[in-house]
Amino acid sequence: MIASVPDVDAMADAILAGAPRALARGLTWIEAGGARAEALCARLYPRGGRAHVIGITGSPGSGKSTLVRALARAARAREQSVGIVAVDPSSPFSGGAILGDRIRMNDLTLDPGVFIRSMATRGALGGLARATADAVDLMDAAGRHPIFVETVGVGQDEVDVMRLAETVVVVSVPGLGDDVQALKAGILEIADVHVVNKADREGGDRTQSDLRAMLGLLPHAEEAWLPPILPTVAAREEGIDALVDALEAHRAALAASGEGEARRRRSSRTRVLQIAQDLLADAMSARDAGEAAALVEDVARRALAPHAAARMLLDEVRGHGPGEERA
Amino acid sequence: MIASVPDVDAMADAILAGAPRALARGLTWIEAGGARAEALCARLYPRGGRAHVIGITGSPGSGKSTLVRALARAARAREQSVGIVAVDPSSPFSGGAILGDRIRMNDLTLDPGVFIRSMATRGALGGLARATADAVDLMDAAGRHPIFVETVGVGQDEVDVMRLAETVVVVSVPGLGDDVQALKAGILEIADVHVVNKADREGGDRTQSDLRAMLGLLPHAEEAWLPPILPTVAAREEGIDALVDALEAHRAALAASGEGEARRRRSSRTRVLQIAQDLLADAMSARDAGEAAALVEDVARRALAPHAAARMLLDEVRGHGPGEERA
Repeated sequence: MIASVPDVDAMADAILAGAPRALARGLTWIEAGGARAEALCARLYPRGGRAHVIGITGSPGSGKSTLVRALARAARAREQSVGIVAVDPSSPFSGGAILGDRIRMNDLTLDPGVFIRSMATRGALGGLARATADAVDLMDAAGRHPIFVETVGVGQDEVDVMRLAETVVVVSVPGLGDDVQALKAGILEIADVHVVNKADREGGDRTQSDLRAMLGLLPHAEEAWLPPILPTVAAREEGIDALVDALEAHRAALAASGEGEARRRRSSRTRVLQIAQDLLADAMSARDAGEAAALVEDVARRALAPHAAARMLLDEVRGHGPGEERA
Repeated sequence: MIASVPDVDAMADAILAGAPRALARGLTWIEAGGARAEALCARLYPRGGRAHVIGITGSPGSGKSTLVRALARAARAREQSVGIVAVDPSSPFSGGAILGDRIRMNDLTLDPGVFIRSMATRGALGGLARATADAVDLMDAAGRHPIFVETVGVGQDEVDVMRLAETVVVVSVPGLGDDVQALKAGILEIADVHVVNKADREGGDRTQSDLRAMLGLLPHAEEAWLPPILPTVAAREEGIDALVDALEAHRAALAASGEGEARRRRSSRTRVLQIAQDLLADAMSARDAGEAAALVEDVARRALAPHAAARMLLDEVRGHGPGEERA
């Protein structure tokens, strides 16, 4: 029984074996953070790297949850075992949507071949990117593939979350006013595939041409891949096959051009730095209690310069965490 | 001659003596960052803490530069020696504005009693908050008081910059559409004084009452101080005396309630953490060159878990910086 798994190794083994309940409990460990979560990640991280991680972002109302649902169904039709991480608080996967959406999701949530997890967006958002990345690793180690990560396309933290994906899909929609304009340029720049959802609405063609014009103004990082603009009507599952083809073509292009490796290095770099910075923030919070607050106190009364205090904080944080063994 | 000052101690002494050219060079050191800047800050930080640091923020077009100018003139009338740090790229102090604004600034820039410095907003914005805080410390040590820090009121980095101020002024203006709504709630919440500038425009009263209604919805951190809403017409120097009175009343209230001390502790805390996180980012950038990139490489090929790599990065960064002596 999963409920009796007492330690990290047993938990890791159960997750690797694909047990959904173990995966669910492991994700709860991840969200709680701390030494246990770190040890679990250290055990599972070397076993991942197989899943296609696809970030899906766009404004609330763009229908990206419906799109994720359609993509998950398409993957199920190919007998893939799907993972979904919903970071978007407005996503029906996160329980933030109206009842109708929840009901429409049921066909997915009842299928054991689709594992859905919503991440709490409360609290430190820096921590959110880290927890999301760890959650994706767990799903990856559990054999889920593809893994969809759904976020709202606003804010630096969202961009950070998206950078962890292999393929980034940005969803636009006609008739949300200046929706395209409103999307952060930072998000448009990291899109590998653009989707204009609800493309049958009035203004659908216009949205596509607006988007094309805007993309022409953006710098192109990669010569090897020009982000396509694809129309979909996710609620009727129209355009989904073409989208699936584009996602796979992007993955193949990444592999062929060597850009995939460069991107893995970049996202590893971002992730290592984020974790280190989170560890510092944690150490600072721990310091807030009791006598340890003396460091900040000394700075506040100008007995110690902030730079010197920062170095003292760094000195303190190292310490040997549980996840240090090389695989 | 200032130009011949060769080392940190001599530079610090010249800044403490109030020499404007030394201050200007010291600020250039700060912007460049590194060991020399850190050593200078360590020398000067204990000598600061006297200036009233006033953050001024608001949308482009709200006239906050004109307001800063009027406040600076009012301070000069009281024979104070003013410092201005412009973080706002649209500020005429930063050189980002139209020629007319530049010319209007001339009466200030020619007065040695007003020291103006614009901070580059390019590059890492995390680093911007740190550099701005250091710049304020230098002006403070040089005897500048009050010190105005002008920023555009958008983004988390701006909020971080504002948190370093003792008194935060948020400038709204009638007729910029949903300007009040558009201001980040995060900025409204940290305002100590609200200014409705260009209050003689149509809609000025409406803007004040909208603002009042909106503030009623915000949580109040401090019982001891209710942020006032003050109308000004900065271009005609109307309402400036009342604003100066409010700024001084806020400073007195902070001192009387003990909130000033609590706030210094909070901003010291934020600052120490930011510096430590910046040091990590610097160490990561240093690693990007040459063989040292092995850490990230190991993570990318899943031979090392990101958490373990983060701890290794932390282990490496500590090291003994030049600013570590206690005053």
